[in-house]
Amino acid sequence: MAMEFDLIARIRARVAARGDVVLGIGDDAALLQPPPGLQLVVTMDALHAGVHFPHGTAPADIGWKALAVNLSDLAAMGARPAWCTLSLSLPEGDAGLVDALLDGFLALAREHDVALVGGDTTRGPLSLCVAAHGFVEPGRALRRDGARVGDDVWVTGTPGDAAGALAALQAGAAVDRALRARLDRPQPRVAAGRALSGLATACIDVSDGLLADLGHVCTASRVGAVVELEALPASPALARFRPEMRWPWQACGGDDYELCFTAPPEHREAIARALAGAGVPAARIGRIEDGQGVRALRPDGSAWTPAVPGYRHFQDPSPLL
Amino acid sequence: MAMEFDLIARIRARVAARGDVVLGIGDDAALLQPPPGLQLVVTMDALHAGVHFPHGTAPADIGWKALAVNLSDLAAMGARPAWCTLSLSLPEGDAGLVDALLDGFLALAREHDVALVGGDTTRGPLSLCVAAHGFVEPGRALRRDGARVGDDVWVTGTPGDAAGALAALQAGAAVDRALRARLDRPQPRVAAGRALSGLATACIDVSDGLLADLGHVCTASRVGAVVELEALPASPALARFRPEMRWPWQACGGDDYELCFTAPPEHREAIARALAGAGVPAARIGRIEDGQGVRALRPDGSAWTPAVPGYRHFQDPSPLL
Repeated sequence: MAMEFDLIARIRARVAARGDVVLGIGDDAALLQPPPGLQLVVTMDALHAGVHFPHGTAPADIGWKALAVNLSDLAAMGARPAWCTLSLSLPEGDAGLVDALLDGFLALAREHDVALVGGDTTRGPLSLCVAAHGFVEPGRALRRDGARVGDDVWVTGTPGDAAGALAALQAGAAVDRALRARLDRPQPRVAAGRALSGLATACIDVSDGLLADLGHVCTASRVGAVVELEALPASPALARFRPEMRWPWQACGGDDYELCFTAPPEHREAIARALAGAGVPAARIGRIEDGQGVRALRPDGSAWTPAVPGYRHFQDPSPLL
Repeated sequence: MAMEFDLIARIRARVAARGDVVLGIGDDAALLQPPPGLQLVVTMDALHAGVHFPHGTAPADIGWKALAVNLSDLAAMGARPAWCTLSLSLPEGDAGLVDALLDGFLALAREHDVALVGGDTTRGPLSLCVAAHGFVEPGRALRRDGARVGDDVWVTGTPGDAAGALAALQAGAAVDRALRARLDRPQPRVAAGRALSGLATACIDVSDGLLADLGHVCTASRVGAVVELEALPASPALARFRPEMRWPWQACGGDDYELCFTAPPEHREAIARALAGAGVPAARIGRIEDGQGVRALRPDGSAWTPAVPGYRHFQDPSPLL
């Protein structure tokens, strides 16, 4: 790992300690002591300027989000986060920018007791690539491939808020503060993921859009799903919009980083208790059925087809391949 | 982790299995089973087009190098590599480019029994960010901070080859094939690092240039060092140049990914045996002394000062901060 030398010192001075970090930032690699008996959970996601966040986003929010999307992946596995690394590409040697990015990044790291243990810095277009590491008890990970016919489909929080903010932003309209916070400072549902371990049969975080991500669960589990649009929980800010207006955001908007999960009906009460304990609201929005694909239904039972099937982040680029 | 769906299948089909990968590419995160009793070694380095490799570099070589620089960091810690993740940013959805990048990446992964377990793909300027994971016995890691006054300074292989290739390339001259291979397909010194565990007092991989990287060891160990330029091993291709011409490449050229390490003189024979067993040549090039900084000496004992103190990769950009 190579970091410019002053930058190492700058970052190192701000990083919180963890007892299981034998050697952190500053050597060729970090030395870490995994807890005995647990499985290691590893994820990696990059944020690129203009693709994953609008130009003009506050650097602290970019830093926050770069870690948040990775902790969200750990949350979706039911893992407890522990360590992360950061590869930072910066267009200019701007110490103030680095400090501001770290303000957000390290604020979220502190909230989840995650230690930044290494990475590198390069000159280039602004981007942050993060790898996050956590732990889960063997057999207790929440995977995508466990959904069974008859399971309920659940979602935490109020999906669609980030997409609502983005729509206003792209239209040049005033952006509701609460919605904007959901776009810029997503809260990875770590406590919810931990609480669902052992109760949910499958889980995914909503990054591409609820229907699209539920579709990934269905594909992995070889099942289909139906979602009742009326059951989608709407935040106060979103509830002010007509249903036909907000459904695309709720059903197809990405970047909320809520958890979509499946569980058998007999776990309803246990799930409600577990999530209340984690301080995270959740709603039942549909069920797993035979077949394949995800059907969305209007309140009158008719099929609803979104204009855009999946969310492709800020720029909405065409699929990669 | 989010990968475009066809791309997942494309990559997944080519990835080698490892018994300790409980769940690889395709879920929110990878599930891995660390071996009991060992420490986890984690590093992360990104390669950006135009910074870490010249435009026009063969995609397979880019893929190879992206993993090589990370395995080199593990080698410098004395670790045994196990798993990696890859964040791929691509300017266009070119399946042929992905395949070619993977050709090199996975060829090196196979050589070291490393499993690609996850990552993400994004549309953007060509870059590859890799995190690599390995293991080392507690207390056996090669760190930068263990060099002691009186230690020998060693280097594996023939540093300067990659810089020699780059110099020819930048001058528009014909590039020697052996030198070009050293620039494009660096061999991470994993076996050497493993063999040196317990024998070397400090170790670093030569990415920024021998004197600069030895300087990092000296800073971490709070010592100084002297290097005899005459003792620097030259490859046949480099030996054809006048010493004054090749010293800057050998002493200050980066991208060779050889190991520079320190060890007490009483370990000389054991080191020679261990490295012979690993099939890696090495030479004693200097010693650790009181003080700080690295002095380079000409054959007549006079001080030599390089025109460029450190190597800054292909574009030679100014320091980041």
